[in-house]
Amino acid sequence: MTDQNCFDVVIVGAGPAGLIAATWMAQTGIRTLVVEKKPIHTQAGHADGLESRTLEVLDSFGLGERIWAETNRTIEVCLWSTSSLHGGISRDSVQANCTPGLSRFQEATLGQGRIEEHLLQFVGRHPNVHILWDTVPTSFIIHNHLEGLSSQHAIEMHLTTAKSKNGVLSSEKTPAPASVRAKYLVGCDGAHSWVRQQLGLRLEGCSRENCHWGVIDCVPVTNFPDIRKRCIIKSNVGSVMIIPREDTLVRIYIELSPATAAQFRSNWYPSVLLTVLGDVLKPYYLVTSDIPWSTIYTVGQRICHQFSVHDRVFLAGDAVHTHSPKAGQGMNVSMQDSYNLGWKLASVLRGAASPQILRTYQEERLPIADRLIKFDRRMCRGICSSRYGEDEEPDQHHQQQQADPSHEKDKYSKLKDALSEENSSAAGLAATYAPGLLVTPAGSPHSPLCLDIPSSIWSKSYLAQNIVLGRRLLDTLVLCQSDSRPWHLQQKLPSTGQWHLLVFGGDITASTQMARVMDLAASLSHPLSAVAGRINAADPVGSIAVYLVHSAPRLDVQLADLPLIFRPLSERTGYDYGRVFADNKGYQDGTGRAYKVYGIASEGCMVLLRPDQHCAYIGALEDTPALEAFFERFTTVDE
Amino acid sequence: MTDQNCFDVVIVGAGPAGLIAATWMAQTGIRTLVVEKKPIHTQAGHADGLESRTLEVLDSFGLGERIWAETNRTIEVCLWSTSSLHGGISRDSVQANCTPGLSRFQEATLGQGRIEEHLLQFVGRHPNVHILWDTVPTSFIIHNHLEGLSSQHAIEMHLTTAKSKNGVLSSEKTPAPASVRAKYLVGCDGAHSWVRQQLGLRLEGCSRENCHWGVIDCVPVTNFPDIRKRCIIKSNVGSVMIIPREDTLVRIYIELSPATAAQFRSNWYPSVLLTVLGDVLKPYYLVTSDIPWSTIYTVGQRICHQFSVHDRVFLAGDAVHTHSPKAGQGMNVSMQDSYNLGWKLASVLRGAASPQILRTYQEERLPIADRLIKFDRRMCRGICSSRYGEDEEPDQHHQQQQADPSHEKDKYSKLKDALSEENSSAAGLAATYAPGLLVTPAGSPHSPLCLDIPSSIWSKSYLAQNIVLGRRLLDTLVLCQSDSRPWHLQQKLPSTGQWHLLVFGGDITASTQMARVMDLAASLSHPLSAVAGRINAADPVGSIAVYLVHSAPRLDVQLADLPLIFRPLSERTGYDYGRVFADNKGYQDGTGRAYKVYGIASEGCMVLLRPDQHCAYIGALEDTPALEAFFERFTTVDE
Repeated sequence: MTDQNCFDVVIVGAGPAGLIAATWMAQTGIRTLVVEKKPIHTQAGHADGLESRTLEVLDSFGLGERIWAETNRTIEVCLWSTSSLHGGISRDSVQANCTPGLSRFQEATLGQGRIEEHLLQFVGRHPNVHILWDTVPTSFIIHNHLEGLSSQHAIEMHLTTAKSKNGVLSSEKTPAPASVRAKYLVGCDGAHSWVRQQLGLRLEGCSRENCHWGVIDCVPVTNFPDIRKRCIIKSNVGSVMIIPREDTLVRIYIELSPATAAQFRSNWYPSVLLTVLGDVLKPYYLVTSDIPWSTIYTVGQRICHQFSVHDRVFLAGDAVHTHSPKAGQGMNVSMQDSYNLGWKLASVLRGAASPQILRTYQEERLPIADRLIKFDRRMCRGICSSRYGEDEEPDQHHQQQQADPSHEKDKYSKLKDALSEENSSAAGLAATYAPGLLVTPAGSPHSPLCLDIPSSIWSKSYLAQNIVLGRRLLDTLVLCQSDSRPWHLQQKLPSTGQWHLLVFGGDITASTQMARVMDLAASLSHPLSAVAGRINAADPVGSIAVYLVHSAPRLDVQLADLPLIFRPLSERTGYDYGRVFADNKGYQDGTGRAYKVYGIASEGCMVLLRPDQHCAYIGALEDTPALEAFFERFTTVDE
Repeated sequence: MTDQNCFDVVIVGAGPAGLIAATWMAQTGIRTLVVEKKPIHTQAGHADGLESRTLEVLDSFGLGERIWAETNRTIEVCLWSTSSLHGGISRDSVQANCTPGLSRFQEATLGQGRIEEHLLQFVGRHPNVHILWDTVPTSFIIHNHLEGLSSQHAIEMHLTTAKSKNGVLSSEKTPAPASVRAKYLVGCDGAHSWVRQQLGLRLEGCSRENCHWGVIDCVPVTNFPDIRKRCIIKSNVGSVMIIPREDTLVRIYIELSPATAAQFRSNWYPSVLLTVLGDVLKPYYLVTSDIPWSTIYTVGQRICHQFSVHDRVFLAGDAVHTHSPKAGQGMNVSMQDSYNLGWKLASVLRGAASPQILRTYQEERLPIADRLIKFDRRMCRGICSSRYGEDEEPDQHHQQQQADPSHEKDKYSKLKDALSEENSSAAGLAATYAPGLLVTPAGSPHSPLCLDIPSSIWSKSYLAQNIVLGRRLLDTLVLCQSDSRPWHLQQKLPSTGQWHLLVFGGDITASTQMARVMDLAASLSHPLSAVAGRINAADPVGSIAVYLVHSAPRLDVQLADLPLIFRPLSERTGYDYGRVFADNKGYQDGTGRAYKVYGIASEGCMVLLRPDQHCAYIGALEDTPALEAFFERFTTVDE
């Protein structure tokens, strides 16, 4: 085994989940191999929904704005159903497809292939990540005697060329090595995950064998008025979902009877789907001569309750949760899985955290997958015709399956509830990780959450009443002290492996408050402090960036009067002018509301965000010892 | 002469003006040669100010957002002067550096080199434009017998390699041809323009021989609190201007005594400049070890009153106007010069307009240059110390040159006026082209403007009271009818050579108003109409894109009910869903105000915009004949 065949991380699968993992590895300089059985990235079809949070995640790698500019925006969602008046369909309602103000990005659509291209371009700029296309693993073993030693290449994996008949477009011209060694293995290889099967793990759940949907991407010519809006159509002859896409492409989901499904499966002629679609859309017409992609699926929800083995092998994305594409969440939750995992792996590999933090991956992501599965089941119940058997929970009685009007009405309101939930919490923005090694509990001796966690690091969440521990920080506008430029605070929290310590100093023109900020800066700079060693360290992975957000009038504050910790001096680039912000009204709407948005009182507080922007700890300006204790819990001890 | 050496357009100079001309040529498919004496684009220094309008222009080629993301924003401007209290400088005022709401872009800074890179990347994607670096013209002649024939290559130019000692980085590996032929020649070759000299034309004006400024780009380490804001400092020992730039770079202008200027000119040691700067900045310090660029200039304003010869050779940018860089306008006006010229050249070369439109280049741009020169003189008077002789008009008496306080105060208010003017009108947004071949007058028999222009094409500007004829259309948000997505209307007006006809149809759910819109559409589609031939034509150059902006509730309007002219059908991409907009309140602030912003009454109107977004004509929905007459005036007649 040569060094050349030794990697820190091997990722199996170069879909969205695998590529987000690879993006983290690229960003943090971790030597990584990505193995993908396909000869090239996705060319057409597959996933296409991007939620606000996913766009925020992409933006944290500098990719958000460009991808956002390419997307189609699904501003509104329309519900249509059979009209009692003329028998054809008519529009019942139009509502906003996302709740304004929750994020600077809103729900949008773009083909999975384009998103992969952006991620591949990013990864391609980092020579530490190698991608082998057209390559599959044939076996892997974990060398037991190395298992406990995270610094060892305990995993051995054998590779071979996939028997692809589509020709090879490889970013690596070299053939796959027969065997590679790795410290960590990440299986992002989809619903039929080879890695998961090797681990002897299974997706659990069930399919509705009678509930089939055909899917086409097409450029339609139609007089259906809402063809460029997200639509759910529940007609007497079946249901249809319309998802407008980039350019003039439209994704259409078409509910199929078991017989039609069988017919399509036998010949794959999209005309079968178009016939059903035409019936549903009456009195409107839709024709198309351009169908770049089509598929069929049977509704089902499955989950694997184990996301990792020995904290050496991890599974993410479809490898651990599959469901219907109705809510457009699959790709999002998958990318968010590996976004959660990536910085933890990098931190361990760089010695900035002990391997025990890796167990938080499953602790944090399994509940999200569970919720997704349940949500998808509700969405499907709302959308599918009852006639095809997806109306009830599987364990409920089947006698109600006849479509009667009162029953339909009830289903409609459930669908609306599900849509509302998707617009806010389900859009990834509300994902809240429970207290654990990387999230402190809101301090209260009565809270069961606090039992295992020393009270010294309980958070004082009452100091920032609207910041939710374990949840990503809500974005707001602040003004840069040095030049009065408004910034989305989130733009200052890039994904680099760095933690972010936001010091809300209050009105620092008041001498008491300024003294508290000075004291905090002094304690954070103390030569014996372990936290001080992390602050503004050269290697971003595991370091802490410190920011001051004050509420004083900005012209009364002199940057040069502030502690150096808030304006670190570099020999090459001078002072850093991007660390101090004023919560002042500027020339742009929406500025001057940060303290209000976060519910921060005049005494201020400090808020510690993890490298993934999720809130880890809230304390008073005097709580440096709690910070020390927090980091101490997972600081690496030499093996 | 082989075909290979024949070009439609030869551009001399690949600075910002030359590259905007090249960008137009690239975009419109015109065979073009760019000749640049330097071996490579600008690497450091030179211009750095970007005005709102320039960013709009760049955005109209799809480059705005990326350049905007790279810029530094100069949000505020601070005035500093010697304090009577402690003798050092203190801040007198802080004000907004641009008027909010006039554009979606605001004043910003970015090194000229980066802007050139973006333009070169754009041009590089179009094989019809060739760039020869390290190449200079040695002579050119206009073949008289071909002069009147615009379709002939009447210009012959000889080229040779520039004797560059900086090594060659050429995008073309082939050596320059000895001789090329062209239909049109554009001289964008700077203040010492070779093309201008060949034409026997001169810059007129004068320098203030006693008024010298040193300039440095540096990464400063300083406790001066406004180092990241635009500052004008008028101290007892001289004046300084600070322009923060991208990253941590700062551009500093330092007024020099004649003796210091001579010293710097003799040795080019920036330490000479830093010493003066240090004196001005007291009590603050500024040190730097990184000065990537420095220069010195003597204040002067010069203009060439002829912008073209025989409408065959054109001059743009510094070749026809030079001035001090105080207002950060030089690069902007230069780029806007060739932005004005480019689409006209392309239209003539594609047969979409007669060559007579070319005379409007000088008619429209010379007044802008005149105004720039006067504005710069005012700015300089406001900024320079009176002791160095730039206080008064050259023809005024020189006795007042001693700095007395009341006099200084007066000067300060003039400076503030100049700054205000720059923020609004001078930022390129207010540039208003007078009535002529390509701008109709606001119709009134009493207006002297209308004398030469037939009354059949006088504009009914009262129908859109806030739209200024000859000025670029103010941007506003509208909702796309098909998907309710908010768009900046300006984003729908790209620079492709296409004219834009905005039909403000009013409330089209009212049958009378809908009937008027239907009639307009019919008249615009009439087989005998010359305008109809231009509408949605295959070649964008000289064609007309039609848009409908109605004020009806969007859910009450069905796109499929509207005339095909507003939703042209393409075999490949289906209906065009991007032509109809509703002036409705959407989910985003700022929507639903278009009719109010433009001052459009309920009866509606139509507004014709030129390919450069400047308003050419305003008429009623029945005024298709006026449109016909307008285009008729400059439609090509075969030679």
